[in-house]
Amino acid sequence: MGKNHANIEDIPLVIGIDFGTLSARAVIVRSDNGAVLGEAVSEYRHGVMDGQLTAADGQELPPDYALQVPSDYLASLVESVTGAVKDSGVDAQQIVGMGLDCTSSTVVVTDGEGKPLCEDPAFTHEPHAYIKLWKHHGGNEQAARIVQLAKERNEPWLKRFGGTLSSEMLLPKALETLEKAPEVYYAAEEILDVLDWLTWQLTGRLAYSASDSGYKRIYYDGVYPSHEFLGQLNPDFADVYSSKMSHEVLDLGQSVGGLTKDFSQKLGLPEGIAVAVGNIDAHVHAASVGAVEPGQLTGIIGTSTCWVLPAQTLELVPGVFGVVDGGISDGTWGYEAGQSAVGDMFAWFVDNCVPEKYRQEARSRGISVHDLLTEKASVQEVGEHGLIALDWWNGNRSILVDADLTGLMIGQTLATKPEDQYRALLEATAFGARVIIENFENHGVPVKEIRIAGGLLKNPLLMQMYADITRRPLAIATVENAGAHGSAVFAAIAAGIYPDLRSACEHMSEIHHDAYLPREEVSHQYDQLFALYQELYDYFGRGSEAMHQLKRLRREARIRSVGHGNIPSK
Amino acid sequence: MGKNHANIEDIPLVIGIDFGTLSARAVIVRSDNGAVLGEAVSEYRHGVMDGQLTAADGQELPPDYALQVPSDYLASLVESVTGAVKDSGVDAQQIVGMGLDCTSSTVVVTDGEGKPLCEDPAFTHEPHAYIKLWKHHGGNEQAARIVQLAKERNEPWLKRFGGTLSSEMLLPKALETLEKAPEVYYAAEEILDVLDWLTWQLTGRLAYSASDSGYKRIYYDGVYPSHEFLGQLNPDFADVYSSKMSHEVLDLGQSVGGLTKDFSQKLGLPEGIAVAVGNIDAHVHAASVGAVEPGQLTGIIGTSTCWVLPAQTLELVPGVFGVVDGGISDGTWGYEAGQSAVGDMFAWFVDNCVPEKYRQEARSRGISVHDLLTEKASVQEVGEHGLIALDWWNGNRSILVDADLTGLMIGQTLATKPEDQYRALLEATAFGARVIIENFENHGVPVKEIRIAGGLLKNPLLMQMYADITRRPLAIATVENAGAHGSAVFAAIAAGIYPDLRSACEHMSEIHHDAYLPREEVSHQYDQLFALYQELYDYFGRGSEAMHQLKRLRREARIRSVGHGNIPSK
Repeated sequence: MGKNHANIEDIPLVIGIDFGTLSARAVIVRSDNGAVLGEAVSEYRHGVMDGQLTAADGQELPPDYALQVPSDYLASLVESVTGAVKDSGVDAQQIVGMGLDCTSSTVVVTDGEGKPLCEDPAFTHEPHAYIKLWKHHGGNEQAARIVQLAKERNEPWLKRFGGTLSSEMLLPKALETLEKAPEVYYAAEEILDVLDWLTWQLTGRLAYSASDSGYKRIYYDGVYPSHEFLGQLNPDFADVYSSKMSHEVLDLGQSVGGLTKDFSQKLGLPEGIAVAVGNIDAHVHAASVGAVEPGQLTGIIGTSTCWVLPAQTLELVPGVFGVVDGGISDGTWGYEAGQSAVGDMFAWFVDNCVPEKYRQEARSRGISVHDLLTEKASVQEVGEHGLIALDWWNGNRSILVDADLTGLMIGQTLATKPEDQYRALLEATAFGARVIIENFENHGVPVKEIRIAGGLLKNPLLMQMYADITRRPLAIATVENAGAHGSAVFAAIAAGIYPDLRSACEHMSEIHHDAYLPREEVSHQYDQLFALYQELYDYFGRGSEAMHQLKRLRREARIRSVGHGNIPSK
Repeated sequence: MGKNHANIEDIPLVIGIDFGTLSARAVIVRSDNGAVLGEAVSEYRHGVMDGQLTAADGQELPPDYALQVPSDYLASLVESVTGAVKDSGVDAQQIVGMGLDCTSSTVVVTDGEGKPLCEDPAFTHEPHAYIKLWKHHGGNEQAARIVQLAKERNEPWLKRFGGTLSSEMLLPKALETLEKAPEVYYAAEEILDVLDWLTWQLTGRLAYSASDSGYKRIYYDGVYPSHEFLGQLNPDFADVYSSKMSHEVLDLGQSVGGLTKDFSQKLGLPEGIAVAVGNIDAHVHAASVGAVEPGQLTGIIGTSTCWVLPAQTLELVPGVFGVVDGGISDGTWGYEAGQSAVGDMFAWFVDNCVPEKYRQEARSRGISVHDLLTEKASVQEVGEHGLIALDWWNGNRSILVDADLTGLMIGQTLATKPEDQYRALLEATAFGARVIIENFENHGVPVKEIRIAGGLLKNPLLMQMYADITRRPLAIATVENAGAHGSAVFAAIAAGIYPDLRSACEHMSEIHHDAYLPREEVSHQYDQLFALYQELYDYFGRGSEAMHQLKRLRREARIRSVGHGNIPSK
């Protein structure tokens, strides 16, 4: 807090709230220098429902489903904001604006007043009336049809998405609802991403985030996909935008409106303070670390990884999720790419593949299993484990955009140890990052520097791998909760303290340059492993159909299993 | 024991001893009907030394090494034989012959009296003076050179070994000793497989087993590889056979000689009883289950798997380890193929990849982790886990003969459970077996029926997989220790009770026909997974160099690790 110059009582404060996959986190931030004065976290009561519909009847859910409960978000909003104010010890009357971000492509269906349909007793038992979390992949088939038709019709927007779409986006999720639960679809007056639903709740006004709309809602140069296109997908889908998604789109930093009296009381904040339009959880990190100029790549490395990159020009980059004018910062084209399983994959390994003796060792030393494995892996030379993995445990988002791809590990011997496999998984995510960076550069989008935020900053072995494998210095976020902090930056703009993102970042961003430097000799060693990673990437991602066949056989087996009266094991 | 007709005191008894990887097992058997009257097991004191030279100074061993202590074999011989006699309760004077088998390609170096060089104080600290166990792969480079030169010179014997040789065989192990520890090589007056060393110890006469010589010592139509060939490998290697391996070769069932007075006292057996020439541990199972006619394939499925198959004709089968006239039974060509890691791979998984909660569940239910995983895997439909593995954790013996190949698993997702991976490993070994069987049949060697022996008979899920995946009924051994039992069959021949193997088997073999039957629908489901297994088998075994590159990078990394003062982790 070395930046404390003025009397704290005179400083306008802002609040940022980051809605993640499992919890919401709020921070109270000084608008003059970006210092964080207080914070609080609140976990969603029902977490992620990916096995059973635990919020209702506990019914088994298909394997690709990942649902959530809307009221959990509101409860965690209140708990985190009031907790952060309390933690900061400031006078809540000093707070002049709030901003929020949320996992993107997390979709909710509501009535005309914003009440989620799962709260209607008629739909309590209907999975499609709940929030479809970003990693809900139930719309794989719908996404494939959307892409197929868009290709046939040569739809102009398809190129902006690298020539393909993920099933994670709003449109396939909405079409899935129409086709699997039509009564929910017909009852829905609004279909929207949760970040827009949250600002609607806070202000009473429904407007869409331009950034989110561009990346996730196929809002392209001011228009959506045409009635004709949508009607060809399904006649009842023709008017999905005009009847269920017809509100105004606001640029980043704009205010949706003032905080309602109702929420002002619930949150203990002044009524009418500015509520900035929502932003994508990953993208707000770019504001926190000040990566708003062309070539400044921000990686947000957590359960999954999002890469966001402002650039001077619009280029067609295959496999890139979206390219949006002003999507990250004004006056640049904002590119987004992603890796679907990073921390999630490491957590899977720790939960499913680590023997008892390792757990015992970690317990007896009072460290986490992650830390134990990292420590054991740290002393290895590059390549010593003899392994290569493909980091596709949750499909491949960039640059293949194929949710049906799956994991791979080769090189195991009878001497392979848990830390060997763990290290191979860490490396695989760094190799995946390198593929994304090279793909940008090979298509005319330069990457000049890398700034890292996200939960996995805490693993120095992983960070050094990213520097060595990408052959670039890493700058790292110094604010612990860069997501919520980034949202607070937008709150300051919405509140009129700064005219635009650049000037807000000049005062409020925090970064530690050259935190990790590439080491030439080690980079060279990794190059040889990376060549093998690329071979496997091409073979399984572009040549062989083996992974798709396995997914198909798995689906058929599950159908037989149900037919035989077995309860599916997952 | 329903075959007890005569007075037990009148029945000549025989003893069979099976020297496995970790222990020796002796059985006392009735020569009239094959019934087992008693048995005992003795574990080798030092087990396998594959990390440190624990019998001496504890020095670190290279990763491909697997060594043993010769005196452990003699101690376990005494303990198991005396224990079996005691267990049977019979009068030891009724015993008229003994036979033994041993892991093949397990090599020892001795002086002219049979004293192992590691017992010479000059060589106690020298790894190459110890037994090189079958799975010692330190001679990979030597094996590659032997094959390369044999191809260049078009050596006629190479075709008998499917056009290639494994580093497990005696010749590469001997050349490795010459080149890595020349002082040991020059001091060695005899280089021999342990089974011949054991009958030498018991009888005072050194003679070689024809079966083992044909399969493992490159004894081909009565001759060994030429001086010229050997000298081209290394000038000092030219006389390896003539100076260090120059004794008589005896057919299966022949007696090497009578039991010495010294061992008669140690073992408590009559002096001078017939000691049959040694046999390969896997091959003796064919005698136990009576699979001595053309087309009767015996699989011995344990830590690794050996397949032995008598056939009417001599065919050139690529990747088959050896084809020996009379190698399994008189008057047939005996073919051998193998899978390097089966039970070893399942044990690796249980030791390294099973989480604490599974161990806790197994403990609380009083079952083994193997049984728990098998139970959980048993309820799955074929393909439900979405995985395919290649069973190459210890390289691929047949049909690729490549010890540098390594493991592979694809299809993992965030929902993949331990039992999924375990089942995929079980299946991989059955797919590997199918490749071997189809390879025989595609090259003119029919497989009419399958008889299974070995420790993994105890896993019915695995056995049913082998029936379903090979589309053949399985007959299974009913004698629990079919190895030692098979050696007892040869003891009866050596003692003159039967004139040949067929007549001995007629009286002494035991088998349960049609224990597992293939199920057409399930076989069809497995066919689809097998097609993917074959794709991966071809790609990684014959196309891509990825696994070899990984091994190379691993070796380089280990060299760097030592240079950096790190203690190699394995």
